[in-house]
Amino acid sequence: MKKHLITVLVSNKSGVLTRISGLFARRGFNIDSLVVCSTEDEHVSRMTIVVTADDTVIAQVIKQLGKLIDVIRITELDPEKSVSRELMMIKIHVAATQRSEIETTCTIYKAEIIDLSPESVIIELTGKSSKLDAFIELVKPYGIIEMTRTGLNALHRGKQSISSQ
Amino acid sequence: MKKHLITVLVSNKSGVLTRISGLFARRGFNIDSLVVCSTEDEHVSRMTIVVTADDTVIAQVIKQLGKLIDVIRITELDPEKSVSRELMMIKIHVAATQRSEIETTCTIYKAEIIDLSPESVIIELTGKSSKLDAFIELVKPYGIIEMTRTGLNALHRGKQSISSQ
Repeated sequence: MKKHLITVLVSNKSGVLTRISGLFARRGFNIDSLVVCSTEDEHVSRMTIVVTADDTVIAQVIKQLGKLIDVIRITELDPEKSVSRELMMIKIHVAATQRSEIETTCTIYKAEIIDLSPESVIIELTGKSSKLDAFIELVKPYGIIEMTRTGLNALHRGKQSISSQ
Repeated sequence: MKKHLITVLVSNKSGVLTRISGLFARRGFNIDSLVVCSTEDEHVSRMTIVVTADDTVIAQVIKQLGKLIDVIRITELDPEKSVSRELMMIKIHVAATQRSEIETTCTIYKAEIIDLSPESVIIELTGKSSKLDAFIELVKPYGIIEMTRTGLNALHRGKQSISSQ
């Protein structure tokens, strides 16, 4: 079992997400992360799905997804040939006396403090998932209040687009 | 009709996404963006949904979502009281002679070039949705090859979390 990164171009219509997530649910496997958003074409949405499963199972799912109405294009991205990024916002307990300490940590990680209250900060950070995981471990001792991550987004390296392949 | 930013904490189980997106689909309205990802608690996923609809319709949907099994918590975030960020990766046509020009643009926007081919670049940028929209307009003349956006992620300002409210 390994993580698979699947990109799907779909018609921007209500109900498409339901059909696609339903296909994954019927197979009984859970989605690690899923992003659906607009693209350069207003009629098309782009979904990026990260799912942990066997290679053979994934191949079947991709085949079935490809048969769905409103699925325009589906590709599994090769991690070696693509760039991937995730965005995280994390709120942690930080007293005024700890602020310079956390600021140094943020500088090293190229993270940014985007909100400050007397007892907490919100930090914004982008990078590969492993970088975000490492940052979470680092700030855990302060006390994590809440966090939100976007899940992985990815593009093929080089000049091709998934619709031109 | 205005944009609503809804955060839902759900059990991290297969099928939950299908039920939630199905509820939106049956109402016939489309989701502008949706993110589902892991949280600080492995049993809980966090969904951030942006949807354009009337206030009264949204109130009903929130009420119905709250009744679903596996929905732990649901909140509409007030844009005035929250920080929101989105991540974009955009691939554009850039010849070698145009590289310094695009580099200057990226510096101004605090964007980062994360891939370079002889004829293209991939740029990573985070910010509010309006900033990303402005950047897209700016680089459109180069020729957009493809792009991926994460959709909006948001946290309440201050020390409270949505689960503690």
